[in-house]
Parts: sequence; structure tokens; C-alpha cells
Amino acid sequence: MNPADLFAHQSDTLNLAPGETLFRQGDAGDAMFVVLEGTLQVLVGDKVVENATRGAIIGEMALIDPAPRNATVVAVAAARLVKVDQRRFHFLIQQNPFFATHVMKELVERLRAMNKILAAAAV
Amino acid sequence: MNPADLFAHQSDTLNLAPGETLFRQGDAGDAMFVVLEGTLQVLVGDKVVENATRGAIIGEMALIDPAPRNATVVAVAAARLVKVDQRRFHFLIQQNPFFATHVMKELVERLRAMNKILAAAAV
Repeated sequence: MNPADLFAHQSDTLNLAPGETLFRQGDAGDAMFVVLEGTLQVLVGDKVVENATRGAIIGEMALIDPAPRNATVVAVAAARLVKVDQRRFHFLIQQNPFFATHVMKELVERLRAMNKILAAAAV
Repeated sequence: MNPADLFAHQSDTLNLAPGETLFRQGDAGDAMFVVLEGTLQVLVGDKVVENATRGAIIGEMALIDPAPRNATVVAVAAARLVKVDQRRFHFLIQQNPFFATHVMKELVERLRAMNKILAAAAV
């Protein structure tokens, strides 16, 4: 199952044109986003750490542990996303273990990617 | 609430002496650990990325997304831990939204720490 399927019938979506910015590193964050269509680049500083496509979740860190956005996210291809606020996020986690597990998997994949970058750089 | 409280009545615990290794980067991983007492150092390569104390969860990445251990974990002070296998981990996530949220918080804190290291190194 792709998490985008959870929002298949969502009519209220956010559409970005190529080159449009979803949010910037340092912005205050009060919502996460699920990618329904398109591709977005996730940048930490000027380093691309992820290419987000259908089913990817973006910005959930600010909901799990409130703090300014950790990355800048820019659409590289026309993108359609669903915005999920704090209340809905916790509802999804409590009602849907699949969603909770998926959020964890995404975080782990990011950690592994960061570890590889660190190892390669032998920081 | 501290996640260690979930295991307050656990009799079957794992005890490590100072200097003892819990697992090494590259090891196969089939369980996570919750720290009940003591302090452990989490190392990626030779870089200390975390000091784990009471309530910290260790090694959950291997349960969320099976792959070899990403870090080496060594007790720096006598430590007592609870071992949680795959089955129990998923039971905890499904039965206890607090536990699921806590696992997410830990992962997010690690990502933020990695981002800081990367930013400082301007990799």
C-alpha cells in the first residue's frame, strides 16, 4: 500500500509548478505533506538529500518534534500534495498503524542516507 | 511518561559493564533495546552521535527497515536494557500510540543531530 492511497479521495490538494518552493529551511512548520503526484527535491543547505515522489511524506519532523523546517523543498516537476495538520497527523498515527510504520520507515531511510553522506565525507 | 516505564516490571533484562559493546556497525540486527539504566555511546564510524540514557531506544532502525546495524553502541557506564524483538515492537506500536510517537521523536532528534553535523562540516 502506498500512503498516497490514504488520500485518494482528497479534493483539497496543494499544487506546485516546477521550481516552486513548498517551504524553506528555517521556516516555522505546522503541517506535513504527502506527495500524490510529481517530484520534489529536499535540500539541506545546498545538498539534495532526497527526491520525493508519490507517497513520500514531507515536513513531518515539525509535527513530531516542533522546530523550524530542517530542509528546503522545491518542486522539480509539477507536484500535487495533501497538507496534513497536527491534529490529523496524530489521528492517522493512532488509527492507522500502517501510517505510523510508514512514517518511521521514511525517517529511517533519511537517517541511513545521512549516515552514508557522513561516512563518505568522514566528517 | 518515560518509555522505560513501559518495561518497569520486566525481569528479563540485559546488563552491560562499562566498555561492553551492545552491537557493532555492520552486525545483523533483529531486535531493538530500551535503556532502563546507565549510559551508552552511539558511534557512527568513530563519531559519537548520541549518548543514550534511561528511556532511550537503540537499534530500532533494524526493526523498522531491516538492514545491518548503522552504528556501534558501547556502554560507558554500567547499563541495564530490555530487548524488544520484531513481534513485540509491532505490538507496541499498534497498542500504544505513545510508544509510536516516542520512536518517531527519537528518529527526528537523530536526524536533526545529523543535519547539524552535516551543516557544520558543510559537506
